[in-house]
Amino acid sequence: MTTTAITHIGSLVTNDTSLGTGPLGLLRDAAVVVDGDRVAWVGGTSKAPATDNAVDAGGRAVLPGFVDSHSHLVFAGDRTDEFNARMSGRGYSAGGIRTTVAATRAASDAELEAGLVRYLDEALRQGTTTLETKSGYGLSVHDEARALRIAAAHTDEVTYLGAHVVAPEYADDPDGYVALVTGEMLDACAPHARWVDVFCEKGAFDGDQSRAVLEAGLAKGLSARVHANQLGHGPGVRLAVELGAASADHCTHLTDADVDALAQGSTVATLLPGAEFSTRAPWPDARRLLDAGVTVALSTDCNPGSSFTSSVPFCIALAVRDMGMTPDEAVWSATAGGAAALRRTDVGRIAPGARADLVLLDAPSHVHLAYRPGVPLVAGVWKRGVRVR
Amino acid sequence: MTTTAITHIGSLVTNDTSLGTGPLGLLRDAAVVVDGDRVAWVGGTSKAPATDNAVDAGGRAVLPGFVDSHSHLVFAGDRTDEFNARMSGRGYSAGGIRTTVAATRAASDAELEAGLVRYLDEALRQGTTTLETKSGYGLSVHDEARALRIAAAHTDEVTYLGAHVVAPEYADDPDGYVALVTGEMLDACAPHARWVDVFCEKGAFDGDQSRAVLEAGLAKGLSARVHANQLGHGPGVRLAVELGAASADHCTHLTDADVDALAQGSTVATLLPGAEFSTRAPWPDARRLLDAGVTVALSTDCNPGSSFTSSVPFCIALAVRDMGMTPDEAVWSATAGGAAALRRTDVGRIAPGARADLVLLDAPSHVHLAYRPGVPLVAGVWKRGVRVR
Ligand SMILES: [Zn+2]
Ligand SMILES: [Zn+2]
Repeated sequence: MTTTAITHIGSLVTNDTSLGTGPLGLLRDAAVVVDGDRVAWVGGTSKAPATDNAVDAGGRAVLPGFVDSHSHLVFAGDRTDEFNARMSGRGYSAGGIRTTVAATRAASDAELEAGLVRYLDEALRQGTTTLETKSGYGLSVHDEARALRIAAAHTDEVTYLGAHVVAPEYADDPDGYVALVTGEMLDACAPHARWVDVFCEKGAFDGDQSRAVLEAGLAKGLSARVHANQLGHGPGVRLAVELGAASADHCTHLTDADVDALAQGSTVATLLPGAEFSTRAPWPDARRLLDAGVTVALSTDCNPGSSFTSSVPFCIALAVRDMGMTPDEAVWSATAGGAAALRRTDVGRIAPGARADLVLLDAPSHVHLAYRPGVPLVAGVWKRGVRVR
Repeated sequence: MTTTAITHIGSLVTNDTSLGTGPLGLLRDAAVVVDGDRVAWVGGTSKAPATDNAVDAGGRAVLPGFVDSHSHLVFAGDRTDEFNARMSGRGYSAGGIRTTVAATRAASDAELEAGLVRYLDEALRQGTTTLETKSGYGLSVHDEARALRIAAAHTDEVTYLGAHVVAPEYADDPDGYVALVTGEMLDACAPHARWVDVFCEKGAFDGDQSRAVLEAGLAKGLSARVHANQLGHGPGVRLAVELGAASADHCTHLTDADVDALAQGSTVATLLPGAEFSTRAPWPDARRLLDAGVTVALSTDCNPGSSFTSSVPFCIALAVRDMGMTPDEAVWSATAGGAAALRRTDVGRIAPGARADLVLLDAPSHVHLAYRPGVPLVAGVWKRGVRVR
C-alpha cells in the first residue's frame, strides 16, 4: 500500500490525550503518516518516517474528519417557500413534514439516490467523513425500506426512523401505526439499518409508544438512538438512558433529572444547533451538560424542514457563540463526540490504527472554525486515506 | 468583445423592479447576456440573443455579486488566542486593537499586501465582487498612508480611518491625535482614499472630535461614512446624517431620534451582524429601521478583533434569523443595499449597463442563502464579466 505523510501541520487535533496536550491531544509542528486507509504514525514533523508521498500542510491545522451522527437526507420535494414564509412572518398553509413525506413517496429511487449523493458530497467537501442518515419520510413499509436500502448503499451509519411521525393513513389510529412500525415495517427495514430511532415528543410518540418502538428494534438486533426533548420536556431522555441508547438527540428542554440520568448513564447527548437556528428556538445548554459530566456530540440534523444545513463548522460556531461551549469542546464534540454517539472508535481521532479521515483547514488552528464563522475553511479532506478534496 | 449568455437561470435577482417582480425584480427561467465587463441584456431564456459562449445554469439561482461595504483587511498579527480566551470565559491580558496595531506597524509591505490579497480572494470565492476596506491599524502618518496605498492597489473602495482609536503615542493627548488625523495624516492619506471614516463611540472619538475628522475629510474632497452607535447610544448616527455621510455603520443602539434622522436623510444604515455574533452583543434591529423607511445595507465588518468573517451569506442568514429581515430584504441589503452605502449604481444589480458581477448559487433560489446557513452555496462568480470561480 502507498504511504503518505502530511507534514508541517501547525496544529494537529488528535483527540488522543496520550499523543498530545489537553483534551484534544494537540500537537504542534506535527506530521501524520497514512498507510492505505489507516493512520500509521503520528508525531513531530522532524521525526516522521520516510513515505512514498508527502503533503506539506504549511503550518495549517489538521483535525479528524467530522462525524455527523444525525441527519435526514433521503427525501424529495422543496420547502423553500415554507421556510421563506416562516422567516418573513407570513402565513403559509404548510404541510410541514407531510409535504416531504408526499414528495418522497412520489419520487423514484433514482431521484432519492441523487439527492442523497448530492448532500453526502456537499457534506464531505465541508469535512464530514462519517455521516449517519435516517429514514422517516416514507412512513410505509415499502417507502421506509426503500429509503434505508438507498441510504445503506452510500453511508455506513443508517437509522430506521419509521417512528418519525404517525403516517397520515393512521392519523386516527396511532397505536395501529406503532404496531406497524414494530411489526411488518421493522421486519422489512432491520436488514438495512444499524440503528432504531423514535421521535419521542408531544405530537409524535409518547413515552409508552417510544419504548415499544425502541424495544422492538433492540429485540431485532438494532441499537437505539432517540429524538428526545426537542420541543419541550418529556420522557425521551430518561427512556434513552434506561434502554442504553447510544445517543439522546436534541436535548433542548432538560430537567435536572434528565441531566442526572445522562451523567450517570452511557448515553451521549447530541446537540443540533442548526435546528434551533432555523426555527428560532431557544438554544440547548451545552455548558450545563458538560459541567455535569455528560458526553456531548454536535451534529447538523440536516433536513429540509427544520435545519437545512450540512455544515458542521457552522454548528461549531453556533455552539461556541450560543451554547456555552469553548472552541476546544465544540471541536471535540463534532469529531470524537460524534464518534461516541455512534459507538465508533475507529473515527473521530487521529492515532495509529484509526481510519485515515482527516481535514486540513486553511487556518493555523481549529479555533478558527469558531473564530471565522461562515467562512469555508476546509482546504483538504482525506477519507479512508484517499484525498477527496 | 466576447459575449456570453447565462441561460436557464431558475430564479434571477436583478434588483431592478422594471425587469422583474417584487422588490428584487425577480425573473424565472431567465438569461443574462454579458458583453465584455458589462451586462448587455436580461430577459427570458427563450428570447436570449445569440452569443459567442453560453453557460447553462441548469435551473439554479443567479444574483448580483455581493457588495461588502465595510471591512478592515489591511492588518497583520494573530488574535486567535484572544478570541479563544474570550469565548472560553478565561481571562486574557488582551491588547485588543493595539495588538493588531503593533503587528501591522511591524509588518512589511509585502506581508500586509499578501494578507489583503488572501482575504480579498477568500471573499471573492464567496461571491463578494465589490469590497470596501479601511486603514486604521497604522495610526501614524506613515502607516496609515501605507495601508491605504496597499488597499488602493487591490480594491476600488478605500476608506481612511486614521480615527479608528487614539494612537498609543497620543494616549494622554487625544485632541493632539485628532489634529494629526485632520492635518498631516489626512494630507498623506487623502490621495489614496475615496472615503473618510471615524469610530464615533465612547472610548474612541466623541461627537466634536468625530465632526472635526469628518469635516476635514470632506473639505479635502473625501466622502464620509461613520462607525456609529455600535456599543451604546451616542451622536454618531445623527452626525452622519447631518453631514450627508453615505452610511452610518453598526447602528446597534438607536434612539427614536436616530431612526427618524436616518429615515429623513440620505444616509444608509449598514448593519454588521458578524460583529454581534463574534462578541455576543445584542442584535441591531433591522425590522425597526426597515419599517421606518430607512435604507439598510448588510456587510461583514471583516476584521481580526470583533468579526473575522468574510462571508456575506453568513451575514444574510444571521440577519434573517436574528434581526427581523426577510430573506428577500437581506439579499437586497447585501447587494443593492451595499451599493447604496457606497453610492454606487453600477454594482448591486443585474441590468443592461451594470457591471457584470454575478453569483451563481448551487440552489434554486436566493432564499437558500438563509435556508441553508453555513453551506458554501456559491458555485460560480463573475467579476467584470470574467468568471473567477
Ligand atoms: Zn432529527
Ligand atoms: Zn468597522
